[in-house]
Amino acid sequence: MSGPAAAARRDRLRARLAALDAPAALVTRLVNVRYLTGFTGSNGALLVCADGTDVLATDGRYITQSAQEAPDVERLIERRLDTVLAARAVAAGHTRLAYESHEVTVDGLAAVTAAEPGLGLVSLEQAVEDLRAVKDEAEIDLLRRACAIADEALSDLIAAGGVRAGRTEREVARDLDARMLDLGAEAVSFETIVASGPNSAIPHHSPGSRVIEGGDFVKCDFGATYSGYHSDMTRTLVIGGAVADWQREIYDLVADAQRLGREALAVDAECAGVDAAARDRIVDAGHGEHYTHGLGHGVGLEIHEAPWLGATAPGRLGDRMPVTVEPGVYLEGRGGVRIEDTLVVRPDGPELLTLTTKDLLIV
Amino acid sequence: MSGPAAAARRDRLRARLAALDAPAALVTRLVNVRYLTGFTGSNGALLVCADGTDVLATDGRYITQSAQEAPDVERLIERRLDTVLAARAVAAGHTRLAYESHEVTVDGLAAVTAAEPGLGLVSLEQAVEDLRAVKDEAEIDLLRRACAIADEALSDLIAAGGVRAGRTEREVARDLDARMLDLGAEAVSFETIVASGPNSAIPHHSPGSRVIEGGDFVKCDFGATYSGYHSDMTRTLVIGGAVADWQREIYDLVADAQRLGREALAVDAECAGVDAAARDRIVDAGHGEHYTHGLGHGVGLEIHEAPWLGATAPGRLGDRMPVTVEPGVYLEGRGGVRIEDTLVVRPDGPELLTLTTKDLLIV
Repeated sequence: MSGPAAAARRDRLRARLAALDAPAALVTRLVNVRYLTGFTGSNGALLVCADGTDVLATDGRYITQSAQEAPDVERLIERRLDTVLAARAVAAGHTRLAYESHEVTVDGLAAVTAAEPGLGLVSLEQAVEDLRAVKDEAEIDLLRRACAIADEALSDLIAAGGVRAGRTEREVARDLDARMLDLGAEAVSFETIVASGPNSAIPHHSPGSRVIEGGDFVKCDFGATYSGYHSDMTRTLVIGGAVADWQREIYDLVADAQRLGREALAVDAECAGVDAAARDRIVDAGHGEHYTHGLGHGVGLEIHEAPWLGATAPGRLGDRMPVTVEPGVYLEGRGGVRIEDTLVVRPDGPELLTLTTKDLLIV
Repeated sequence: MSGPAAAARRDRLRARLAALDAPAALVTRLVNVRYLTGFTGSNGALLVCADGTDVLATDGRYITQSAQEAPDVERLIERRLDTVLAARAVAAGHTRLAYESHEVTVDGLAAVTAAEPGLGLVSLEQAVEDLRAVKDEAEIDLLRRACAIADEALSDLIAAGGVRAGRTEREVARDLDARMLDLGAEAVSFETIVASGPNSAIPHHSPGSRVIEGGDFVKCDFGATYSGYHSDMTRTLVIGGAVADWQREIYDLVADAQRLGREALAVDAECAGVDAAARDRIVDAGHGEHYTHGLGHGVGLEIHEAPWLGATAPGRLGDRMPVTVEPGVYLEGRGGVRIEDTLVVRPDGPELLTLTTKDLLIV
C-alpha cells in the first residue's frame, strides 16, 4: 500500500467525524491502524484529527519500520499508546474524542479517562471496518493474487497425487500449506481444514491423524495471505472411482445453492437476501437443518470482516466488496460438502477470484 | 488436561470470589476458559459460582467437542455467551458478578448491562492469569515436551546443514518450522524469527529474502506448541570459521548476563531484581542502550503471560512458575545476539527446559 492510498483512507474517516461531533478519533484496533497508515507492526495506535494533524504512535521496536511504512504521518514513539494520543488530542484543544468501543477494553477506557478526565469519549462505532468493506482496486489486486496462490496450490497438490487414500488429514493440510508458502504466500490465511470421511460433516474440523480412505469426501477449506490480504476457498473432493448416491445428491445440491448465492451478489442487494437465495434451495431440498452457518463474509485484511451474509444480516452490498459464498450440507456421522468461492461485487455481476473448478473432483 | 485438574483450578478461582464480595465470576477470555475447563474451542465463556454450579457456554459448532473436553461442567449451547451466562447468574439469585475487565470491551459490557440492568458488575481483575502463572506438574510436563521438540528440531537442522550461507532467512525458518511439526508440535509457538547479519540487530525481525552470508550472526527465536503449551528459545549462531572480535565480545557478554539472570531465578525473588541481575552486567559493560527490552516472561497456554521480568515489573517469583530468560545486545547495522531459555522456578534452583548448548555455535 502506498502513502497516498492511506492518506485517502484517513480522509474518508475524517469525513465521518463531523457526524459524531468529534474533532478527532483514536484508532487502536491494529488492523485498522494498518489500513489507515500502512504500518504493519504489532503495536500501534493512530489519532486522526479533523484538521489533518494525524499522529501514529508505536513503541521503540518499530522506529525504523514505522518511518518506512508510514512516512506521511507524524510518528510518536512511546510505551502507552492510547493515553499518549489522548493527551495529544487534549493538547490540540479537543474536548471530545471518538474511540473504538468494540475494541477498547473496560480497563483500557478507564486508563484513558483517568489520564484525561476532561475529555469526552464517544464511540467511533465500527467506522473503519465499514470503510474497509469497500476495497480499492489495489486491494482487489492483492486479493486476486492471494486467491491465485490458493488455486495453484490445490491444483499442484491434486496433480501430484497429494490427496489420496493412505495419507492423514494432517499430511494433506501440511502439503497444501507448504505449496502456498512456496508459491509466495506470506502465511496461510487461517488453520487449513482438511476433513475426511465422517469428519467432513464437522463444519470447522481441525485436521488430525485420520487416514483418508477410498470413497471419502475430503473437504479442504484454506487460503493464502498476500501482503496482508486473505483468500478463502473450499472444495470438497471424493477419493476413488465410485461416488455414492448420497454424496452426489448433496454435492449437486450444495453446488446449485452456491451458484444461486453467487448469482445473487449485486450492488445494493440485501445481505440477508443473498443468504436466502442459497439457503432457500437447501431448505426446499429438505436439508435446512444440515446447513448450520451463514452464507459468507467479507474478506480482506481479516479473514472474516464486514459485510456479513447471513439470515439476519443487516445492510446491503456495494461495488468493490469482496465476499465469500460458502453454503454447506453436513450429515453427521456420514460426511458433508461445502463449496466456497471468494468474489468481488461489481456493477456488471460478481468477479470470481477463486478459479478452481466446482465440478465434483474425483481423485 | 483431565477433568479433576480443571475442577481444582475452578476451586482455586472460587476461593478468590469471597475477597471480591461476588458470588460468581464470568470468564470470557478464551484461554482462561480453556484453563478452567479443558475446552479448546474457539468460542466459549464460563460462569464460575461460589456454590459450585459452574456453567460452560459455547455455540452449536462445539456441542460434541465441549462434551468430550469438559464433561464435568454443565454446558449451555447458545449464540450470545456473555448475556446468557449473566442471565443465568441473575436466575440463580446473584446480584453481583465479577467479570474480566481487561478483556471485555466497552461495547461488551454495555450489552451485558443492558440485558441485566440489576446486576452489579465488578472487576475480576486478572485473577485467572494470576492462577495460571503457577503451573501444576502436568502442565510442566507439556512445557518440557514442547521445549524438547524445539531442541531436537534445532539440533536436526544444524546437523543437516540447514543453517548455511546461501540460504535465505525464510528458507531456514520454514525448515525449522517443518521439523518442529514433524516432531509432533501441533503448531509453532509464534512466527519463527531467523535474523541474519545486520538483521540480527532487529530484536523482532520477520524472516525475509536476505541470503545468509559467511561471518553472519544468525539469530533464531522459535518454539513449539504441544497440547496448548508453548516453548520459547533463542540461539544465535555464527556462519563460517572465523568469529570477529566484536561478535565474540557481545556473545560472551550476553551469555554471561543470561547466566546471571538464570541464577537469580528463585522462589520469592523479586521480578525486577531478576531483570537487574542480568541487565546490570550489560550496563556495566557499556551496552545498556543496546539492550532495549525486558529480561523475560512467563510461558504456558500463552507464549507471553504472567509473571513478567522487567526493570519495573512488580511481584515476586513462586515455585513452579515457568519463565524465559532472554537478554540481548543489538548493534544497529552490524548485528545482535540474544540467548533465551525457558526454565521453571523451583525451591532448589531453576529447572532448565531448553537444553540446547549456549556455547557459541559456529556452523
